[in-house]
Order: sequence, then structure tokens, then C-alpha cells
Amino acid sequence: MEMPVPNTAVLSKKAAVVRRLSEVLPSDAVIHEEREVKAYECDALTAYKCPPLAAVLPSTTEQVAAVLKICHEENVPVVPRGSGTSLAGGALPTADCVILGVSRMNEVLETNYDDRYVRVQSGRTNLSVTGAVEENEFFYAPDPSSQLACAIAGNIAMNSGGAHCLKYGVTTNNLMGVKMVTMEGEILEIGGAHLDAAGLDLLGLICGSEGQLGVVTEATLRILRKPEGARPVLVAFNDNEVAGACVADIIKAGVLPVAIEFMDRLCIETTENFAQAGYPDCNALLIIEVEGSDAEIDMQLDLIAKIAAKHDPIEVRQSKSAEESAAIWLGRKSAFGAIGQISDYMCLDGTIPVSALPQVLGRIGELSEQYGLQVGNVFHAGDGNMHPLILYNANKDGDLELCEQMGADILRLCVEVGGCLTGEHGVGIEKRDLMVDQYAPDDLDIQMSVKDVFDPKWLLNPAKVFPLASSDARRVSSIAAE
Amino acid sequence: MEMPVPNTAVLSKKAAVVRRLSEVLPSDAVIHEEREVKAYECDALTAYKCPPLAAVLPSTTEQVAAVLKICHEENVPVVPRGSGTSLAGGALPTADCVILGVSRMNEVLETNYDDRYVRVQSGRTNLSVTGAVEENEFFYAPDPSSQLACAIAGNIAMNSGGAHCLKYGVTTNNLMGVKMVTMEGEILEIGGAHLDAAGLDLLGLICGSEGQLGVVTEATLRILRKPEGARPVLVAFNDNEVAGACVADIIKAGVLPVAIEFMDRLCIETTENFAQAGYPDCNALLIIEVEGSDAEIDMQLDLIAKIAAKHDPIEVRQSKSAEESAAIWLGRKSAFGAIGQISDYMCLDGTIPVSALPQVLGRIGELSEQYGLQVGNVFHAGDGNMHPLILYNANKDGDLELCEQMGADILRLCVEVGGCLTGEHGVGIEKRDLMVDQYAPDDLDIQMSVKDVFDPKWLLNPAKVFPLASSDARRVSSIAAE
Repeated sequence: MEMPVPNTAVLSKKAAVVRRLSEVLPSDAVIHEEREVKAYECDALTAYKCPPLAAVLPSTTEQVAAVLKICHEENVPVVPRGSGTSLAGGALPTADCVILGVSRMNEVLETNYDDRYVRVQSGRTNLSVTGAVEENEFFYAPDPSSQLACAIAGNIAMNSGGAHCLKYGVTTNNLMGVKMVTMEGEILEIGGAHLDAAGLDLLGLICGSEGQLGVVTEATLRILRKPEGARPVLVAFNDNEVAGACVADIIKAGVLPVAIEFMDRLCIETTENFAQAGYPDCNALLIIEVEGSDAEIDMQLDLIAKIAAKHDPIEVRQSKSAEESAAIWLGRKSAFGAIGQISDYMCLDGTIPVSALPQVLGRIGELSEQYGLQVGNVFHAGDGNMHPLILYNANKDGDLELCEQMGADILRLCVEVGGCLTGEHGVGIEKRDLMVDQYAPDDLDIQMSVKDVFDPKWLLNPAKVFPLASSDARRVSSIAAE
Repeated sequence: MEMPVPNTAVLSKKAAVVRRLSEVLPSDAVIHEEREVKAYECDALTAYKCPPLAAVLPSTTEQVAAVLKICHEENVPVVPRGSGTSLAGGALPTADCVILGVSRMNEVLETNYDDRYVRVQSGRTNLSVTGAVEENEFFYAPDPSSQLACAIAGNIAMNSGGAHCLKYGVTTNNLMGVKMVTMEGEILEIGGAHLDAAGLDLLGLICGSEGQLGVVTEATLRILRKPEGARPVLVAFNDNEVAGACVADIIKAGVLPVAIEFMDRLCIETTENFAQAGYPDCNALLIIEVEGSDAEIDMQLDLIAKIAAKHDPIEVRQSKSAEESAAIWLGRKSAFGAIGQISDYMCLDGTIPVSALPQVLGRIGELSEQYGLQVGNVFHAGDGNMHPLILYNANKDGDLELCEQMGADILRLCVEVGGCLTGEHGVGIEKRDLMVDQYAPDDLDIQMSVKDVFDPKWLLNPAKVFPLASSDARRVSSIAAE
């Protein structure tokens, strides 16, 4: 993709904007030196890079409001940033933008065990939310792989999930309220520590909106009581599609494990070489984890074993100790790192109805042959959230483009079987032009009109989520209309 | 409240509109005779009545689109109507409106047990959704008291809950997708049989939007496997507030019953006289139901009994048979009917953080003395969804107004303790002017601006949800701007 580059007008505007921002923020919270802003040139989708005009690191909601008001007045785009772990380019700057980082806003503001919620500033990392309540035996459920680093702000922007979201839902199911600042600097309070919303439910709209509607500065999060225990079982199969069918049968039977994770032969072998988890020699495996008291765990695992037995597994490995449980999870948790050791890869994120797993896995195999690119499949199978890893060689001309084409084909396949372009990574810049495969023009137009309400000048997180073809026109006309 | 009455302009417009509607609908689907439209003059909030200009009963999404297009062109307001069971006046007509009833659209369009969903036309009644899948041991979870009559369209409009929603969530947690027609006649497809939405999550916005954004004609609903069994326990207390504290402790302990229902002395005694359920002589009782296999049920009930024991219950009545379970539920299920036998009443619907139950119950008692009106408390305590029933005499001058004032005080109290004006009945006309107690002007303005996007002329379900003071001006100016 082409990135806008700084021109003279941009550079002369920079001085004015930085001066105004410095009037409302401490000096160490406004970053504008060229070598310093480079730290914000990309997120975890490192194929795309562009240093911003400046970056700011406010500490309060009021400072965020002051920054947005200035940028709105100056017509400067703003890219909100949590911890920069987006895999879809959600926090990628444009050359004329101010990065608004919430990392200094990481306080716990309120903890309420009676009503089971915690209120935090949005820059707090996912894992440290659980950290703040675990000595009282509570936890925050959504657990993206990046949970050590990723911020709640980013989790809300992308409606993040994780391995254990099959039972507890994704971010939207665990978010009770937010404080959000609009591009014009208005501070909104949306939702709270209660069941429902009166009037329009803006909270559901804001969760997953990828920084298009406002900057979330505080979040009220549902916390849950830790279960008594948890135990995984590993089931190995000779065939990807049979493993997929087994997942569909478990879900259909109404069992609700905490997680059902899938790995194919490429991932299993690569992981074994890397982490030596002792996985069986097989073409596909499932790791299924259940929770509860010992008796509840036994009951659920018995039922799962019975369902698995109907699919001719080559091994059903029950865990009999904490060590055995850790060994079962070791390979899965090492999978992305292991693949990264052997190749560059692109990690996709599509969601499909669970019953389509066998069909989609089969078709991905065919596409892999057709494009001549290897694909590793390792994903949250229980809720149909696929993460195919397409292997490519970044040093080989045209390989990235080939990989992107194949990725687009796989995501279109997800939509074709009744699924969705994204499960938890978001659209970002990565999938913006595929939105036309998911949505009819009327559907997209309504979404963009909702953005108009919150951000009439289209300054927030520019050039993302919506296809450039339609959204660019919108952006230009609204600025021209001033 | 004052209702607009038909004037000459309205009557002359009526003939033109009816003629155009008759061109796109079968003749038996356009109702315009005075004595016939009277059937649509109110919903279950019968204190307010107003016959509409006409009523239409389309059978397809395309017919709905044609009706809305005509009404949009003619500037005729449209009030969508499910089964007319709204307790907040959500389907109350205005004199110049067309009622758009979806009752003829009640087909099951698709059933998919592998992916656990059913797709229905929105006029299908709640209970008959379960009816369509129960022979395969599945069910649809949200269960409003009116489930025999109420339509899925109304459930979506109000984000309906029910006694068993503590475990399974309310409508928004069980709705996967909709087909919706905007006031301008555009047909939108939102969501589907997959985990997440790409771009803005309009589905969450539409659920609970009370017919302000469009007319939902089809819904994709999550269905769940029926549990092996379920069993209630009845716990009786000497004191309302102690019962409230026991609920808070159960929730805090992380047990997740399917339902925790609360009844106070007025409700218990009235119900006993009416239904002879054999309830103990006590000031407050809880009915707590848990689900699962026999072993799971025993485990959960043991834990609940231990928690209850700490609150000095005067009786803990375990069920040992299906008959005993039915007897425990009999009184609760008869409560509204029993109160209706002895008095007129207004049923409120506020939601509070569970830990505020004791405080709010105490304050409701004080308000009852202050206003000189009796209050019965019977509600879904587990998720803090209160339904105080204020008793009044419809034949006594000023009693309804006094009751409404007291109701407003109770709902303001709910907001004050961190709760919300509504749990499942919606705002409708009943609470529109209380919205200013829940929301700051900026918050309300953003909600109204989102309505602007979907319904720029403010023709859909007029004079509801938003305070008249702000929304009326909006409506006038948008029509004047044509």
C-alpha cells in the first residue's frame, strides 16, 4: 500500500500543533523529534511503517480531551494507540497524524467484588487487570495471546478474544461501561455497573470500533470468580477434517469447554522441534480444556472422550497432574514462536460457523497447493475463530504479495461459508478493502454514517476499517466543507 | 400525557396513504376502518390509548420495505409492533401514524443444529422459537413472562430478558444477526452465524433500540442444548434486606444459578391466597434454580445452602421431585396475576448493581410510607433487575399520578446507586422524560445523532425513548428542512 509522506505544508503545520499540544501537556508527554517518533512508526503488523507527525502520552481523560480538541481545531488526524500489539495495523500512523498513546493511563480506579467489576484506565495491560484482583480469587476473562503487553484500550478497539473465550465470551461480553472522548473533545460516559442500557446501546457499538468513534480512557470490566480447577485433554487424529468434525460434535452436544484449540501437522512438527512438548505423531490435534470442581471436570471430560471416540482418534491423552497439563499446553503456547523460527508468516483471523471447519480446512489445503505457499493451522476451533499462518519469504520478490493474495482468498472463503473477516484482530488497514466482500454498499454506508456522527471530519484513525474507495471521498468532502 | 388528535389535514392525508399502501399489499393487510384500527390503540401499558391512522400487516421483508418507502415519501410516522405486549408503551400509536405489525411474518426460515442457530421471521412468538427446536432437545434462552404471546421483533426492540437470563444473558447475548429495513426502505443484513462483526457492530446497537432505527424482519437466534435437568430451592427470610444480602453473597461466590427470584411479604401473602403454593409465612423469599446433571445440581445447591445458612434463613426448602419443583415455582409464576386480582398496579423495571439490593429495598419501603401506596417486590434478583409493583386505585382521582411520581422516584433511585432506568421493558413513552436523569446532554445528543443516521426525518416510533423537550425540536427541524 502507499503511505502519505510529509510535505512542506505538513511540516509547517507540525510546529504549530506541537506548540499547542505542549500548552496542555507536560513537556515529557509530547514527542516530536524525528528519532523519537520513529518508535511509533508501526504496530505488530510490521510490514507497514510510517513515522507520525508527533506522539502524545496524556495521563488523564481531561488531557485526552484537550489533545483531541486541539487536533480537531487544527484538522490533524489522530491515531489512538494502546500498546501497539495490533496484528491488523490498527495503530499504524499516517505521516500527518498525532499518535495518542494511552500507556501512561494505567491505574486501577475502583475494585468492587460485591458487584464483580473493576474500573481501570484504558492503558492498563490485560494481564495486570487480573493481577489487580487475583489475590481475591477473581480474574478478567478475555485472554489474547499478547495479554502480557496489550492494553485494555486496544482490547476494546478490536473486541479481543483469546483461547479461553469459548466459555466466557470476548471483550464485548465482559465490558460494562466506558468513559470515551470524541474527536471534538466531548467526554461521554457510556454503560456502567448494571445490566442494560436505556435508549440506544452505544457500548456495543463502541466495542470493536477500532478507534473510529472516540478514544476510550476508562473501562468498567466484569471480573469473575476463579474456577476451582481446570484440566486439558489432548486428542490426536489422522486427518484435519475429522478433527474439525469432532469439534463440531462437541459444540453440538452442548458441552462448553473453556477452550478448544486446534493444530495441524505443520504446526505440531514445527512446535515439537522447538519446544519438545512430547506431542503424538499425528496430522491434527485438539486441546480441550474444561473447568470446575474435580467432579465437574471428570464429568465433562468423560463426555468429551465419548464424542471423540466416535471419530477414531489415534490418541486421547488425559492429564493426571499439573505437570501433564502444562506439557499439553506447552506446544500450543509455543506454536507462533516456533513457526516464526522457521519462516516469515502472515497470521490471518477469520471466523466461520463451526460446522464449516472441515470444508474450510480442506479448501485451505487446496489453496496452499495452488499458491505454492505452506499454511499452518493453529486456532481457537471451539468458536470457529481461525488463525491460518501463511508461510512466505520476505526476502523473495513478490512472495509477500502472493501471500496477501492467498490470505484474501481465505478470508473471502470465510465470508462465503457464512463467516466473518475477523474474529479478534480487527480490520485495520489489513482487511479494509475486503470489507466490500462482507458488506453490501448500503450496509457499509450506514456504518460510515454512524462514524460521521462521532467524527464528522473523519480525523480519527484515518484510512482504516472502511474501503479507501468509499471512505476517502467522504473524508475529503467533509474537510472541504469547512 | 397529551396525545395528538386527528385534524383535517391528517384525515385527508389518510386516504392518499391508504390508497398507496393498498397498491403494495394484499387488501386484507391494510386496516383503516375506524372500528378496526381501534384494535391497535394501545399495547400492554393500557393507561395510554390512541387509535392510529391505519395499520398494515405485511408478510415479507419486501412488503415492509415498500410500506416504509411510501410512509417516508408521505412523511407519515410508523410505529412498528410485535405482539403489542410492551409494558412501557413501546407500540403505542400516534393519531397520524401507520402501525406496522409483523404478526404475519412468523415462519421458521432455517434451522441449523450443527452451528446452533435458528433463523426466523421476526413476528414469530418467543415460545414458538423453542417450540420449533425442542424435539431435538434445543431451546431459545431468553424467556420474558409474556413469552407465549410476545414476538421476537419486540424482544429485539426491548432487549428482553426473563427469569432464566441470569445464566444465559438477555436478548443481545443470544442474537446473532438481523435483516432490518430502514425508514427509507433500504434492506440491511447485519451480523450472522459467526462470532464477531467486521467494522462497526451495528447489531449491538440495534438490539434494544425500541424501533427507533428500523424494522427488524428476520432474526438469527442462538439456540442452546437443553440441560439434563433443573431444580429449584426456596429460601425464606424474616427480612427483605437480609434476603438481598444473601443474593449478593451468592453472586459474589461465583455460583451461577439459572435464576434467582425474589418475593416480599405482600407478594407472598397475595399469591398464597390466590394460588395456594404452600409458601412459608415469612417476610421475603428467594427461589434459586440451578441446572445440569443430578451431580452438578447437588453440588451447586449444597454451596447455595451453605451461603444461605449464614443469613439465618427461617426455612430452606429443597425440592425432591418434579411436583415439589412445580410447587416452588407456582407462587412466583402466579404473582403478577395475584396482585392484579386485588388492585390496579404499575410494574416498574429498573436495574441496579446487586450489592445495592438491601439499600434499594429499604428505600422503596420508605417511599411506600411517604406516598401512602403499597409496593410489592417480585423480581429477578440475580442480575439486579427489579420489578417493584406499585398498587393504586385507577378509580380514585390523582392516584395514578401519585403512583407515577413514586415510580419516577424509584427509577431515579436506581440511577443514583449506579443502575439503569430499565432492565428489559425499555423506555418507551413511560420513561422518556426520565432519560435526563440517566444521561448528560452530550450523551443524549450522541444517541439522537445516531438515530438521525438511520431515520433522518424522525418518523420511526415517534415521541418515544428520547425526552420530548429535546427530540421534538429535532423532529420539527428535520421535517421543516425538506
